[in-house]
Amino acid sequence: MSTTSEIKVITKENLRNMDKIFRLNLINSITGYKSANLIGTCSDKRISNLSIISSAIHLGSYPALLGFMLRPASVPRHTYINIKENGFYTINHVHKNFIEKAHYTSAKFEQNISEFEACGLTEEFRGDFYAPFVKESSIKMGMHFLEEYTIKANNTIMIVGEVVSLLLPENILQAEGDIDLNAVDDVCISGLNNYHEVKQIAAFNYSRPGQPLVNNFEKSKND
Amino acid sequence: MSTTSEIKVITKENLRNMDKIFRLNLINSITGYKSANLIGTCSDKRISNLSIISSAIHLGSYPALLGFMLRPASVPRHTYINIKENGFYTINHVHKNFIEKAHYTSAKFEQNISEFEACGLTEEFRGDFYAPFVKESSIKMGMHFLEEYTIKANNTIMIVGEVVSLLLPENILQAEGDIDLNAVDDVCISGLNNYHEVKQIAAFNYSRPGQPLVNNFEKSKND
Repeated sequence: MSTTSEIKVITKENLRNMDKIFRLNLINSITGYKSANLIGTCSDKRISNLSIISSAIHLGSYPALLGFMLRPASVPRHTYINIKENGFYTINHVHKNFIEKAHYTSAKFEQNISEFEACGLTEEFRGDFYAPFVKESSIKMGMHFLEEYTIKANNTIMIVGEVVSLLLPENILQAEGDIDLNAVDDVCISGLNNYHEVKQIAAFNYSRPGQPLVNNFEKSKND
Repeated sequence: MSTTSEIKVITKENLRNMDKIFRLNLINSITGYKSANLIGTCSDKRISNLSIISSAIHLGSYPALLGFMLRPASVPRHTYINIKENGFYTINHVHKNFIEKAHYTSAKFEQNISEFEACGLTEEFRGDFYAPFVKESSIKMGMHFLEEYTIKANNTIMIVGEVVSLLLPENILQAEGDIDLNAVDDVCISGLNNYHEVKQIAAFNYSRPGQPLVNNFEKSKND
């Protein structure tokens, strides 16, 4: 399809003069597919907050560090306020069977309303961990806030945290440590509003110069 | 499948004592699906470098800012050096028909070898833009380096850049600005070595409290 189409070149100047909503959708699409996660937090008055993000990012494995982005702090951001108040939050994967509920958390609810209730998802407190997990999510993490960075160019904030607990079904943890995200119907996002299902096509070996790559995923399916 | 399995709880302490490779695969899996992009750069001696990344991240739409992560600068990182030398790089989407070539760029080639040649991909210089694009990629961006942030907790570096040009087939640019990534067989990554194909299931409207969500993707398929 794409090969027979004209190539469109969009310059920085074109972007500057573009309709705002069109540009928002376009630029939110250009990194490719993004993860779908729900951030769970709790205010000091014990009001839960739940917010979908597509910006979770791996920062390191030892210690296990993840980041995510928050928009400028000029408008009230419950997630940000709650994390700064008590230092804890959860990251919960979104699966195909609740994408609508997950997406609905992006509506701007009043501060005294829990998105769990408003969106039909179930909060789950575990032990003395301060922030709520999402019961419907099969892969979830308890996180501890470590650092924040404000990107000078647009005042966006990157939140950096450490994984303090990771919960997942035992049977999706593979022999080498990979998680089989297909098995729990994890979805991915493109742009601001598009959700996608995912199907594995390859599992390569570690790349070394001069050594051919082997696709172990195809191999295991053909065995 | 997952609902009948035992839930495994992995603590920070468990992670500390885990086999290194197992932990690497596990923690690289836990954010969910990730975008697949190739970063193209050029050294001051005009040797091209191409490197697969799964950490491209949207930082803002106006100006159009993207970030990506680089591992600690303690080992030579050609991508990092080239970007710091001349300030320009490209981000090129990975499609299903060249995942093997794209993944192979992660092998540690010598500094005087171009990954384009070593991996069978074609460099494409456009106008006077200093960094090479990937000819095989349908969606590609020319980027200008703006800022870098070093994450204190592990010395990982976040590179922040601005989109100076965006190239894509005209027919995958949708009416509201979204890019149809399915149409060019964009893939996503999980962990370090797993590649997946993607199929859209929903396109929701903007969420507002009290307003039901509409899945326009299903609707358009049923019309």
